[in-house]
Amino acid sequence: MSAGNILYAQSGGVTAVINATASAVIQEARRHRINVFAARNGILGALREELYDTSILSYADIRLLAKTPGGVFGSCRVKLKSLEVDRKRYERLINVFRAHDIRYFLYNGGNDSADTVLKVSTIAYELGYPLTCIGIPKTVDNDLAVTDCCPGFGSAAKYTAISVKEAGLDISAMAETSTKVFIYETMGRHAGWLAASAGLANPSSDLPPHIILFPERIFDKAVFLKKVQECVTRYGYCVVAASEGIRNADGQFVADSGGGKDDFGHTQLGGVASQLANDVQNELKLKVHWALPDYLQRSARHIASKTDLAHALAVGKYAVRYALKAKNGSMPVIRRHSSKPYRWDIVAAKLSDIANKEKTMPDHFISDDGFHITAAARDYLTPLIQGEAWPDFDRNGLPKYLQPSLPIINRRLEPFAEE
Amino acid sequence: MSAGNILYAQSGGVTAVINATASAVIQEARRHRINVFAARNGILGALREELYDTSILSYADIRLLAKTPGGVFGSCRVKLKSLEVDRKRYERLINVFRAHDIRYFLYNGGNDSADTVLKVSTIAYELGYPLTCIGIPKTVDNDLAVTDCCPGFGSAAKYTAISVKEAGLDISAMAETSTKVFIYETMGRHAGWLAASAGLANPSSDLPPHIILFPERIFDKAVFLKKVQECVTRYGYCVVAASEGIRNADGQFVADSGGGKDDFGHTQLGGVASQLANDVQNELKLKVHWALPDYLQRSARHIASKTDLAHALAVGKYAVRYALKAKNGSMPVIRRHSSKPYRWDIVAAKLSDIANKEKTMPDHFISDDGFHITAAARDYLTPLIQGEAWPDFDRNGLPKYLQPSLPIINRRLEPFAEE
Repeated sequence: MSAGNILYAQSGGVTAVINATASAVIQEARRHRINVFAARNGILGALREELYDTSILSYADIRLLAKTPGGVFGSCRVKLKSLEVDRKRYERLINVFRAHDIRYFLYNGGNDSADTVLKVSTIAYELGYPLTCIGIPKTVDNDLAVTDCCPGFGSAAKYTAISVKEAGLDISAMAETSTKVFIYETMGRHAGWLAASAGLANPSSDLPPHIILFPERIFDKAVFLKKVQECVTRYGYCVVAASEGIRNADGQFVADSGGGKDDFGHTQLGGVASQLANDVQNELKLKVHWALPDYLQRSARHIASKTDLAHALAVGKYAVRYALKAKNGSMPVIRRHSSKPYRWDIVAAKLSDIANKEKTMPDHFISDDGFHITAAARDYLTPLIQGEAWPDFDRNGLPKYLQPSLPIINRRLEPFAEE
Repeated sequence: MSAGNILYAQSGGVTAVINATASAVIQEARRHRINVFAARNGILGALREELYDTSILSYADIRLLAKTPGGVFGSCRVKLKSLEVDRKRYERLINVFRAHDIRYFLYNGGNDSADTVLKVSTIAYELGYPLTCIGIPKTVDNDLAVTDCCPGFGSAAKYTAISVKEAGLDISAMAETSTKVFIYETMGRHAGWLAASAGLANPSSDLPPHIILFPERIFDKAVFLKKVQECVTRYGYCVVAASEGIRNADGQFVADSGGGKDDFGHTQLGGVASQLANDVQNELKLKVHWALPDYLQRSARHIASKTDLAHALAVGKYAVRYALKAKNGSMPVIRRHSSKPYRWDIVAAKLSDIANKEKTMPDHFISDDGFHITAAARDYLTPLIQGEAWPDFDRNGLPKYLQPSLPIINRRLEPFAEE
């Protein structure tokens, strides 16, 4: 009897290092002589039987994969519903797995994905199909429960801290006759981890960012504008890092782009900085600029955190080990032993403790006035951006990233009915 | 008789490498045993007699200065008017120069600054004050005449190409169920050089950016939207790089932020990407995201171009040499001898050939359809982003940048009347 194959799939927003996790899965599996299929565009590829056979990747490809941002196999924003509602789709997954002798399902995503993995595991058991289901953590939002941090976050945090530090130097040089207030918008729908990471740019709030706006604190425009004016009076300029997810006292997002909702039911955001900039310009009459890095912050592999990369590789490796040890329903998570020096290892957590939960910033990470991070937050965040992990560059000055064109393997089933 | 001192001042928007030019000025002057004063906040500091004495900077400081973005002495957006209108201010400058034995005025800026240098030179001659005036080129917009390129541009171009490459990988991974169109806004008021540099992200327009919008071409919304739809149909997604300065057929900027005008009379822009995003969403009904890197693109020293850094250092060094050779009214500019391999040197140009002129993209650098760069543009642009020039990083994962707190030297004159 064959040992069976692994199916690896990515879910939700990609990161600067999720491909590193993929590369570690493939490498560890090869060590155990297990083949890895990768689903095209995440769970969609599994449903459609659109699978890549990673055995055609050379070792050079796999090394390059570890240094490539984005998701080379594709990801998706599709959440399967309950077993009752989506039973047909869950059964389809098992049929695809059976057709390709897939005995291990490794799903690389956030808290929604952890929920999906659990349900796939349940249906496999019901149908009597032997399948080991493992979740692998990933999200720039850093909002997964149990794990100390999430692969992908550290690199986005490093990008954020450096960008705010650099832009801050620019604005301080020009403030007397040009921009007085600069607003930098970070991702983070409900958790302020990325906004908090801007606070690492400098050792204190006397330097940029002078103000951080967290979704964990109610946004009060009058208090904010007063604080901005105080900074401009005191320092000559003011740099603000604002989470896209800040809300007013009535619970409304400060800036709802009106772009509707994604398949997870999340409202699509993106306009906090311009909204705040308008307020500053209209009410304080100060010249203002804003930056919206958007996807740049989660794809900036060129300035990836070495710690984050190590995490991403480790969770990939341990996911395979847990799979082969039949630790069904588990996720390799990061456990911190100390911050100075930074010591960590990987342990198995139960997916049921992670699914559908969201970890926001604890109160003691946010300063009393609600506008900056505390020393405890610095202790937590700093190790996550430590170390540089440059990609290789070609002689034209661009990073070398893998751009594979993998063939889809031959189908063995009829197309899925819902298509 | 003393050899006199150099006054170095920065003008207009700062860059990732303008401090490198400053460091080269100081180093070369020290070699010739000449002291360098630096004006606080550009020409304003010269008018106000707010000068830094750079002799207190250690060699370690100067090395760090060469790796620090922004402008450590401060810059400003102030343009002196004609000799008739602003005669009092020009005379004040000469008084300040006389009070501090400044015999060399090195002004580091763009085409407006070249004009100011010329006028200062004229008034010094009229007043019989011996002064050598030198311009030093700088601008991320790359729009100075005569010089092959402008220090500051190469690093911003490298940032742009890499950012678009990385975000492009992210979007391609997610496009099936998430964002279909991504719009990246570049600086460049009247010249499309930075928008063009996005074109270096990949070897052809089959990969991001699929579309580039130049201020040198009239923006036609209908044609643009048709092209976006074609890309989405063909590739599954579309990445657009848009210059902030694109205009409609009636000459109006596509997005005028309404932020008024700066002291140079330039309209303050910043909203092209969001404007285009609205059009895409409303008329094509496609999910769209946009990025506005704003100051990040000109301060991203962490991903500076090695070529650009070499240019920035060279023009600083030659500015001092020209000053000591009494090449009054000149500017060290970059001359290209070949692109493959890239060979260049520094030559003296006349400031009168540079002042108030603007170099836009030549026609043969823009593809026939107006939406991408040509092979000739690639040949021109590629050397400018070649090579990496990483800053040093501290053990907390942040770049080491100079944050000096220099004292202002003692005044010898009464405060300037206009204050």
